[in-house]
Amino acid sequence: MKLPGQEDFECSSAHENVIAEELDSGLSPSSSLGGPSDTDNGESGVSKDPLLFIQLNELLGWPQALEWKETGRWVLFEEKLEVGAGRWSTPHVPTLALPSLQKLRSLLAEGIVLLDCQAQSLLELVEQVISGESLSPELRGQLQTLLLQRPQHHIETSGIRPCRGSNSFRNASRDKNTTLKQENPLRQKLPPGAEAAAVMAGELGFLAQPLGAFVRLRNPVVLEPLTEVILPSRFFCLFLGPPTLGRSYYEMGRAAAVLLSDPQFQWSVRRASNLHDLLAALDAFLQEVTTLPPGRWDRTARIPPPKCLPSLHKRLHSELHEVQAEDRQYHKQHTPSPEMQRTGSVSQLCSTFTWPQSPMPSLLGVCWEMLLKVPRECWRVSWAQRTGPMLVFERLLFSFSRDHSLDYLPFRLWVGIWVATFCLVLVATEASLLVRYFTRFTEEGFCALISLIFIYDAVGKMLNLIHAYPIQRPGSPAYGCFCQYPGPGGNASEWTSAKHKDTDELSVHLGLVNASLLPPPECIHQGGYPHGPGCYAVPDIALFSLLLFFTSFLCAMALKRVKNSRLFPSVVRKVFSDFSSVLAILLGCGLDAFLGLATPKLLVPTELKPTLPGRGWLVSPFGANPWWLSVAAALPALLLSILIFMDQQITAVILNRAEYRLQKGAGFHLDLFCVAILMLLTSALGLPWYVSATVISLAHMDSLRRESKTCVPGEVPHFLGIREQRLTGLAVFILTGVSIFLAPVLKFIPMPVLYGIFLYMGVAALSSIQFMKRVQLLLMPTKHQPDMLLLRHVPLSRVHLFTAIQLACLGLLWIIKSTPAAIIFPLMLLGLVGVRKAMEWVFTPQELLWLDELMPEEKKNIPEDRLEPEHLFSKDDNEDSELMYQPKAPEINISVN
Amino acid sequence: MKLPGQEDFECSSAHENVIAEELDSGLSPSSSLGGPSDTDNGESGVSKDPLLFIQLNELLGWPQALEWKETGRWVLFEEKLEVGAGRWSTPHVPTLALPSLQKLRSLLAEGIVLLDCQAQSLLELVEQVISGESLSPELRGQLQTLLLQRPQHHIETSGIRPCRGSNSFRNASRDKNTTLKQENPLRQKLPPGAEAAAVMAGELGFLAQPLGAFVRLRNPVVLEPLTEVILPSRFFCLFLGPPTLGRSYYEMGRAAAVLLSDPQFQWSVRRASNLHDLLAALDAFLQEVTTLPPGRWDRTARIPPPKCLPSLHKRLHSELHEVQAEDRQYHKQHTPSPEMQRTGSVSQLCSTFTWPQSPMPSLLGVCWEMLLKVPRECWRVSWAQRTGPMLVFERLLFSFSRDHSLDYLPFRLWVGIWVATFCLVLVATEASLLVRYFTRFTEEGFCALISLIFIYDAVGKMLNLIHAYPIQRPGSPAYGCFCQYPGPGGNASEWTSAKHKDTDELSVHLGLVNASLLPPPECIHQGGYPHGPGCYAVPDIALFSLLLFFTSFLCAMALKRVKNSRLFPSVVRKVFSDFSSVLAILLGCGLDAFLGLATPKLLVPTELKPTLPGRGWLVSPFGANPWWLSVAAALPALLLSILIFMDQQITAVILNRAEYRLQKGAGFHLDLFCVAILMLLTSALGLPWYVSATVISLAHMDSLRRESKTCVPGEVPHFLGIREQRLTGLAVFILTGVSIFLAPVLKFIPMPVLYGIFLYMGVAALSSIQFMKRVQLLLMPTKHQPDMLLLRHVPLSRVHLFTAIQLACLGLLWIIKSTPAAIIFPLMLLGLVGVRKAMEWVFTPQELLWLDELMPEEKKNIPEDRLEPEHLFSKDDNEDSELMYQPKAPEINISVN
Repeated sequence: MKLPGQEDFECSSAHENVIAEELDSGLSPSSSLGGPSDTDNGESGVSKDPLLFIQLNELLGWPQALEWKETGRWVLFEEKLEVGAGRWSTPHVPTLALPSLQKLRSLLAEGIVLLDCQAQSLLELVEQVISGESLSPELRGQLQTLLLQRPQHHIETSGIRPCRGSNSFRNASRDKNTTLKQENPLRQKLPPGAEAAAVMAGELGFLAQPLGAFVRLRNPVVLEPLTEVILPSRFFCLFLGPPTLGRSYYEMGRAAAVLLSDPQFQWSVRRASNLHDLLAALDAFLQEVTTLPPGRWDRTARIPPPKCLPSLHKRLHSELHEVQAEDRQYHKQHTPSPEMQRTGSVSQLCSTFTWPQSPMPSLLGVCWEMLLKVPRECWRVSWAQRTGPMLVFERLLFSFSRDHSLDYLPFRLWVGIWVATFCLVLVATEASLLVRYFTRFTEEGFCALISLIFIYDAVGKMLNLIHAYPIQRPGSPAYGCFCQYPGPGGNASEWTSAKHKDTDELSVHLGLVNASLLPPPECIHQGGYPHGPGCYAVPDIALFSLLLFFTSFLCAMALKRVKNSRLFPSVVRKVFSDFSSVLAILLGCGLDAFLGLATPKLLVPTELKPTLPGRGWLVSPFGANPWWLSVAAALPALLLSILIFMDQQITAVILNRAEYRLQKGAGFHLDLFCVAILMLLTSALGLPWYVSATVISLAHMDSLRRESKTCVPGEVPHFLGIREQRLTGLAVFILTGVSIFLAPVLKFIPMPVLYGIFLYMGVAALSSIQFMKRVQLLLMPTKHQPDMLLLRHVPLSRVHLFTAIQLACLGLLWIIKSTPAAIIFPLMLLGLVGVRKAMEWVFTPQELLWLDELMPEEKKNIPEDRLEPEHLFSKDDNEDSELMYQPKAPEINISVN
Repeated sequence: MKLPGQEDFECSSAHENVIAEELDSGLSPSSSLGGPSDTDNGESGVSKDPLLFIQLNELLGWPQALEWKETGRWVLFEEKLEVGAGRWSTPHVPTLALPSLQKLRSLLAEGIVLLDCQAQSLLELVEQVISGESLSPELRGQLQTLLLQRPQHHIETSGIRPCRGSNSFRNASRDKNTTLKQENPLRQKLPPGAEAAAVMAGELGFLAQPLGAFVRLRNPVVLEPLTEVILPSRFFCLFLGPPTLGRSYYEMGRAAAVLLSDPQFQWSVRRASNLHDLLAALDAFLQEVTTLPPGRWDRTARIPPPKCLPSLHKRLHSELHEVQAEDRQYHKQHTPSPEMQRTGSVSQLCSTFTWPQSPMPSLLGVCWEMLLKVPRECWRVSWAQRTGPMLVFERLLFSFSRDHSLDYLPFRLWVGIWVATFCLVLVATEASLLVRYFTRFTEEGFCALISLIFIYDAVGKMLNLIHAYPIQRPGSPAYGCFCQYPGPGGNASEWTSAKHKDTDELSVHLGLVNASLLPPPECIHQGGYPHGPGCYAVPDIALFSLLLFFTSFLCAMALKRVKNSRLFPSVVRKVFSDFSSVLAILLGCGLDAFLGLATPKLLVPTELKPTLPGRGWLVSPFGANPWWLSVAAALPALLLSILIFMDQQITAVILNRAEYRLQKGAGFHLDLFCVAILMLLTSALGLPWYVSATVISLAHMDSLRRESKTCVPGEVPHFLGIREQRLTGLAVFILTGVSIFLAPVLKFIPMPVLYGIFLYMGVAALSSIQFMKRVQLLLMPTKHQPDMLLLRHVPLSRVHLFTAIQLACLGLLWIIKSTPAAIIFPLMLLGLVGVRKAMEWVFTPQELLWLDELMPEEKKNIPEDRLEPEHLFSKDDNEDSELMYQPKAPEINISVN
């Protein structure tokens, strides 16, 4: 059920397939520890070769104390032994000197090459290798002893967590090694079926001639003491020679190890049948090698592993045609998914009701999921629903009906009925096809508007709060408040007996008995009336609220970033980052409780009943309104339908992007159908209308991302797909419903803390869209601009123009939202599509391709090859793989957590 | 007057010498536009070759519309034309495919190589090149026309500021180009004397054979339309051939351009006398090339320019011996400067009175310096002097004399006299030699202590402030305050006439005439007395102070970071970052003024007189103290002498590190002599004692850094030296003195703002020392640890042990500072040296070399070759140039701004 255009990703790792299969099927994908199956055809065969662990043992200590020492190892990247520190270096891209590759080639050409060696043990292997050499018997014996000597391994003892997932395969694959495996954490990180290669290199004084050997074993054998990880060895290389200047045999050994770690070379050499094939593979490697000039790059600088490796597919088929095809496929991924084609919608609808075909990775996984994600999601759902364009519209409708003295709920019911009707019409006419016109331009406009509403509301409510609790400036008449008792002398006896009597300033200095300086609450409690300008001024609240507001905002921002920090283990960082909002709220509540000031708290109703007193659960269809209002309601309903359509469909388009690799199809029409029914239901019951869920839907999807584990040193985790299931979604909404019973807890949350979190949500969402990056470009000197792909292909002035138009549209939307004409703003939102369409007269299709996406007509109008942004220069130019830089993993546009 | 060990820096740029000379002498270093002087010997000759600007013109549009287009250019790094965007790419390290280098080699071997070509114009040049080819006359004509065709240049029009400094040379070098120069900003960025190289490459269908030519002109000629920058061309390369798959001629052209941009190749080829030399240079390049495996690195990924380029010196003399020598030199730089050797100190002293020998770069520079740095420094001096260990000691002394009912000032005078005596003894015995025992361990302990005092004081004072203005919780009896008039009815007539009468709650509700609810200040003003628990409670102050505290702290931190932001032009960023504290204070004052709350403000005396009333300027020698106290004062004086010695000498050691490349010698003894005299003076006058100036001295030095301008694309600015002069220092202290007349302005600064800035200073200083990086390592999982040089050579457990010992020492110091034994803490500070000495039993010298520095004895005890941290593996291993990663530019340990 894969969508087209998903097979080929520029970005691949040597054992991506293995891991992906592990996670998908929960079964060991390959128990073929035997030779590589020669029936495999080229491309797919490459990635099915077992992963190779390569170890370099260097001969040290000539002439006094000869010993083998492991000084380097490779899986994907190189790790060097830091001799002084006694640890492995950080994994890095191996760099070689060209001469060592050339020397290796000539040594191999003259040396011993045994392909399909039948040796069953190290001894047999060594004997076979040495027998080929013309050495005196004495030297031969010495050499053999030396080669059989146990090398010194550096076993890392620091606590690296075993990689989850591979655990279950350990027992299945090899039983007898279970005790040994626990010694070496690397073993647990390698996928099952991995093989080893041992490279031995060094300087040996008694040799007159260099000695080079390359052995491929027909059946991989565990060469017991050779490699630190107990794995069957497939390859064995030996490079020894008389002492030279500059560790050249060590460098040759490194070169051989790097060659073996190259998937293409490994593929060739696994299938090589003679020396010629081996050298051809080496030459092919040389042809593809990247060289850096010595004056501009220091060879010893360690290059950290790139985010993305060049794919084998690309290396194998690097012809012009293929490159262009990939380009096109890439661009296809950015357009709405092909399910949008006009097809019979009923079968489509049904398919979305089925459950995902592949079972969940494991029950444990689901439990963890629930534990971690559901409470977080609940929090998001509860609060994110409180703002958004729908709410804005509902507020406008309410003020309209109030201004014209209409009965709101019946009017609203009719609006709901009309909206449902319009939505059903839209479903019937398959209007969802129009979604193809919602390009990134529209999406970003919509998202930016939502984010700005969040920010504006948060700041505005905070300002209102400050106005409600004014700060007492010196000189303002806020001092003074006394407590007066009902009648002079009336309750005097009561009062006189009160313990406050002696210390009260009023009675002491003025001799009064019917007044005191008790604080207002106590005064009321004792039956008096507080009088004076200072009685109702609550000091400190405004500033403390401000402190809480900033604290929760900054704390949420900071905790979110903990994820990318180097400190703490990843589990701790993940928890901090995932629960950043919740922790920020808890901190705010803690601070509030500590000081105990009367900050305004969240108001939670204690009972489940309609808010308006005296009405039942069902809204009466007419109420006090004239009958024609039910017809007139069609006009606002039309606007609301547009809003719902855009809201719903933009969310759906973003969620169903091909990058997310969703297995199940999209249900554009079904979704709209459900929305229509829900509109009817909520209108009839007077419940809040269906509300924009863009932010939470995306955040939910984000929390269901499946990423590969970074098991092999230096490997960057990559996106595998979305854990598609309905469990978390269902649980989230059930728990959200249950939250109405949480009132006793929720009432301790101060409002300023919530406003701070709203601000954080708005800021986080706003800063995640590309539009904001382009706005920043406006303020950035050309020299400091980042190497964005966009800027490589579109002139800066055009980028700025595009950004300026977007800014202008947003400004216009905002202005309309703030004027009396606000009710038509859904129409203006739709107008964004028109603006985008009009841009075709200003920008060339190539520019729009990079700045935005193409609209359906544009794609038809442009010949296929013109779709490549640089048809003039792109003939198998290097540029094609610039796409490497483009994020392949989905970029969530509005992510609030 | 260079110190030994300064000639060779691993880090060099191709034209560092040129720029350095420009700045030093203010004169054009080289007007030799003629051929390179062959009398230059190897190494020094290389860097004196003119800088080469290389341009690649590609032939496009075969067969219809042939045109030359500039698609790449090189000075230090490669810039590619982004065809779509119409801009130059960001400068990056050029990467080549090995085959293109090999093809280039064979094309050159077969093609035309003209060394010392005498052509005077492009036409002559083209004729000479074509005449060597066996072409039909018709084709020859076509080719000639094509080669003379004007290429299409991309001239960047965006506003890049011309590089200051090179301006003055423009007119001197070439007059006739002044009009053209303004067109191209790159021209202004190239140093005078730069030459050009033009590479022309592409596919030409009518050629049957590839055509390759390499021309070196005897006298560089401006080949008018060829290069975008009007410069005399030295080299001309031509690579044309029949159409191939994959732009191979373009790639050959790129390879030639990269070769020419390599300083070593350029040096060789400028001196080559025949084809053989040329090919030998190419082969030498190939031998040194760094290769990256194709499966682990994408050739098309753009590598940003490294911070540091491999030095030519290292490439030229890469033998074992040299490498070790460099290693040793590097480590020497980290030990105190050689001026510390025991020499006659008088001549030494005198030399520090002379003014720097080289004049300042320009008067304008000094003025800018003053404008920017002096006010900033003043600010720092004024506030940084208020805390530190000296102040801690003085406070302890004061409380001691108060506890024992001593007359403080006379006692203090005697302490001062003794300290001066001890200091003079230290000078006479040349005790400054002991400074060699102050390693980084001691420095860091001292610096961390100062920083912690800053932080502790800031937070502590803030807490005191909050206690002074308690927050009014609901229920606390802080409400109620009324105003009572002297006698009942006494001033009734006055009061009755007051306008408040009608609205006053007391008179309205209680019928009182001798009391009202006026705010306390107005009440006093009208002759009444405020009564009640709420009269003296000032609300909002505590929380507002807290807000100001955090605002100024966060604002200073954020502004400091603006320097590394990508937004805004560099001038704006520099101003924001340089004045971060001042701007933060202004913001705080603004906020304070806006709300107008009565926050505590800075108390500034309005008169210049002794604070203690009734004493004159001179302190009486005995006062009320017994005579023997003048002898007993020697004991605290001894402790104080240790403190002053450490404070003064640690600062001097840090300031005189070889990395700072100071031209003038250090005056360890003179400084101590001056301190002794100042102690006498301040004690006699009862002025504050000489106070720790570590922080401000370092900050001052930091603000006098001289860095190279990043003129050439991709070049990273590097440290050139310190602008040594006495002008700014003098001005700073004069202006600081003048600041006592600024009282009317300073009294508007709220104290919480200043506490916030103190906190910022402490945090900034603390986070800049390596010790803190190691503390962070304690919390960091091994996998995420940064690739620190330290971690490559010392086992992690040893690093942690070292850090733990440092933490323990710091904890002990802090505890002693807080107990009654506090007065001996200077002794404990000295004890750090002892702890460091004792560490020699725990750590190996190699470990200490990486973690700290070596003490004098250790250096003697260890044989020279054992000083290399990895003598076992370091035989011309690549490791040597790891030192490249170590910062060569000075790392200021305690930098507060």
